[in-house]
Amino acid sequence: VVQRRSFVTGGAAVTAAAVSAPAISQNRRKWRFVTAWPKNLPGLGTGAQYFVDAVNRAAGGRLTLELFAAGEIVPPFETLGAVASGTVEAGHSAPAYWKGKVAASGFLANFPFGLTAQEHNAWYYYGDGKALSDEVYDALGVKYFLAGNTGVQMGGWFKQPVNSVADLRNRKVRFIAMAGEVYKRLGATVVTLSGSEIVAALASGALDGLKWNNPYGEAAMGFWRYAKYYYHPGWQDPTTSMDIMINKKEWDSLPNDLKAIVEYCAASANAAMLNEFTANNAPHLEVFVKKHGVILSQFPDSLLIEFANATGEVVSALANEDPLSRKVFQSMLKWRGQQTTWTNMSERSFMIARGLSYKFPTA
Amino acid sequence: VVQRRSFVTGGAAVTAAAVSAPAISQNRRKWRFVTAWPKNLPGLGTGAQYFVDAVNRAAGGRLTLELFAAGEIVPPFETLGAVASGTVEAGHSAPAYWKGKVAASGFLANFPFGLTAQEHNAWYYYGDGKALSDEVYDALGVKYFLAGNTGVQMGGWFKQPVNSVADLRNRKVRFIAMAGEVYKRLGATVVTLSGSEIVAALASGALDGLKWNNPYGEAAMGFWRYAKYYYHPGWQDPTTSMDIMINKKEWDSLPNDLKAIVEYCAASANAAMLNEFTANNAPHLEVFVKKHGVILSQFPDSLLIEFANATGEVVSALANEDPLSRKVFQSMLKWRGQQTTWTNMSERSFMIARGLSYKFPTA
Repeated sequence: VVQRRSFVTGGAAVTAAAVSAPAISQNRRKWRFVTAWPKNLPGLGTGAQYFVDAVNRAAGGRLTLELFAAGEIVPPFETLGAVASGTVEAGHSAPAYWKGKVAASGFLANFPFGLTAQEHNAWYYYGDGKALSDEVYDALGVKYFLAGNTGVQMGGWFKQPVNSVADLRNRKVRFIAMAGEVYKRLGATVVTLSGSEIVAALASGALDGLKWNNPYGEAAMGFWRYAKYYYHPGWQDPTTSMDIMINKKEWDSLPNDLKAIVEYCAASANAAMLNEFTANNAPHLEVFVKKHGVILSQFPDSLLIEFANATGEVVSALANEDPLSRKVFQSMLKWRGQQTTWTNMSERSFMIARGLSYKFPTA
Repeated sequence: VVQRRSFVTGGAAVTAAAVSAPAISQNRRKWRFVTAWPKNLPGLGTGAQYFVDAVNRAAGGRLTLELFAAGEIVPPFETLGAVASGTVEAGHSAPAYWKGKVAASGFLANFPFGLTAQEHNAWYYYGDGKALSDEVYDALGVKYFLAGNTGVQMGGWFKQPVNSVADLRNRKVRFIAMAGEVYKRLGATVVTLSGSEIVAALASGALDGLKWNNPYGEAAMGFWRYAKYYYHPGWQDPTTSMDIMINKKEWDSLPNDLKAIVEYCAASANAAMLNEFTANNAPHLEVFVKKHGVILSQFPDSLLIEFANATGEVVSALANEDPLSRKVFQSMLKWRGQQTTWTNMSERSFMIARGLSYKFPTA
C-alpha cells in the first residue's frame, strides 16, 4: 500500500492501492543538475542553487533536482556535453563557455559596449532573443533558458594605473573572449588562465591586470592584495548572461505544468541573480575602499574610445564568421540602437540627475 | 467515476473511484483576481495578465485565477478592501493607491530621486524590503508580493518649455503623491484628476502638464496631440512598483507547493513588467519623435536641483508622520546611499561610456 501526498485531497488522505509503486515513482522525476561553478560561488553558484530550490519547492516532489558543483560529476566545460548526451538531465553554466562549439553563443553571453542586463532581458523575453537563443542551443543539442545576469561588471584590477593605450602595451592581462581580443589589438599580452589560477598569477607578477566579474563575485578572491587600481566602467561586460541547459528528451517528456514550473522558476532565477549581485556589490565595494585601500579608478574617455573602436572591429569580424552569428549579432545590434535612445533618456538621465548636489535626508 | 489528470501517472490512467467528487473539487481552487487596470492596459493590465497566465499554467488546474478588469467586480480603489474582506481572493494594484490607509505604502511605491527598479528589487529580495513590505501589507490586511516595476519614467508632457521654477508658477499640472507635493512647493497649481479625465483636461487647457508613466504606457493616450514637450529625466518616478494582494485566509490555506508557485510566478511577473516596458518604450519613443513631432526635452540641472531640494523636504515630512513610514523610509534611504555608489560606478558609468563617439557597426 502506497500513500502519497498527491493523493491527499481536501485534507483527506486516500489510500490508492490500485496504483502500482513503479507508476508513482515514474511520476516522481529526479534530475541531476550539474553546474560549472563551485558550490555557492557568490552570484553564480548561489544563482544555480536558487533555481534548484525553486523547482523543488514548486513541483512538490514531482520533479526533484539535485545540484552538483563543478567537478562532482563533470568538470565545468563538460557540463553541456553531459546534458546533451543524457549523462545528466540538466545543468547551469554560461553561453560564453560554448562559443568554441557554436560561435553565436558568444554573442548570447554579451558583447563589449553592448546590452545591459535590462536591455538583454527585454530582448530575450519581449524581442527576438528567445527564438534566437533557442536556435543557438538547438544547435548545441539542449533546451535553453536564460538564467542569470551579472549586471554591469567592473573593468578590472590593475597593478599600475591605466590611462592610455601606451599603458597597456606589453602588460600581461587576463581578459577572455572578445575583451581579450580587444586588449590584444591594443598591444597587451593576453594570458590564458583558468579562474583557479588567476590569484596566484597576479601575486607572482605573471599578471599585471585581470577581471573576474564584480565586487561581490571578486571579494573572496582578494585581488586587492596584489592590485590596488580597481577600474570602471566595465565596458567589456555590460552584463554576462548564464544558461540553464536541459536534456531535450527529458524536457519533451515533462507534462505541461512541470514545463511551466521550470520556465517560471528559470525566469525568477534570472532576475534573482542580478538582484543578488546588485544587493551585494555595494557593501563589498565599500569594504574594498574603506578597509583594503583599493583605489577606485575610471578609464579616461580617450582610452574608452580606443577600447570601443577596437571592439567594433572585433565584433564585426566575429559576426561575419558564420550565418548564425551574424543573425544573432544583427538582432542584438538593432536592439542596442533602439534601446540606447530610451536607456539614455530614462536610466542614464535619472542616474545623472540623482548625482547632482542638493539637500536630501541621509540615513 | 471521476477521472482526473492528476491521477494519470507514468502514462497510465488510473480510475479512482474511491475519491469523492467534492474532495477533488476542493483541491481545484478558483480565485477571482481583480485588478486596478483596464484589461490589457499596456504594462499594468498586461503585467497582471502575465501573473494569472503563469499561475494557471504552472498549477495545472489545482489553482485557477480568473482576471477581472477594473470595475468588473470592484472599482480600482476598492480592490484592496475586496481582497482583505474575502469578497474576492486576490488582486493586482499599486502600493501608491493605499497610502491613505497605511502611509508607509507610499514609500513602497517609490520616492522622487529614490531607488531605480533594479535597486528596489535588490532591496526587496536581498535586503530588508520583503520584511518591511510584509509589515506594511499586514497592516493593510492582505498578503503581499512585489509584482511589477515601471522602470524610470518620463518627466511628463508640457504645453510650454519648462526651464526654471518661474516656468512652473501657476501652471496647472497633474502630478500625484510626493511629486504633486513638490510641484506645489514650487508654485504650480496641482489638479487632482483620475486617469480617465486627464486627456480631456489637457485638450481643453484645464491642464498645462501631466505625466502617466512612460512611452509604452502613454502611447494610446495621445498626449502628444496637446503637449509637444516631452521631458526627462523622470526624477519623480525612478520606478513605480506594483503589488499582488492575496486574502490572508486563502493564502494560509494553500499547500506549500502552490505557495511556492505563487511566489515564483510573482517574482517572474515582477521582472516581466519591467522587461515589457523596456522593450516597448524604445519603439514608441521613436514614433513620438519621428511621426508626431514630439520635442524631447531635458530639465536643466538648475531646475532638477530645485526639484530635489523640495523633494528632500517633502519626504522628510512624510517620513516623520508615523513610525512605520519612518522605518520603511530609513531602510530605503540607507539602501539608496550604498547602492548609488555602486550604480554610479556600474550602470551609469557604462551608459555614459557607451554614449561616447567611436566607430561601431550599425544594424
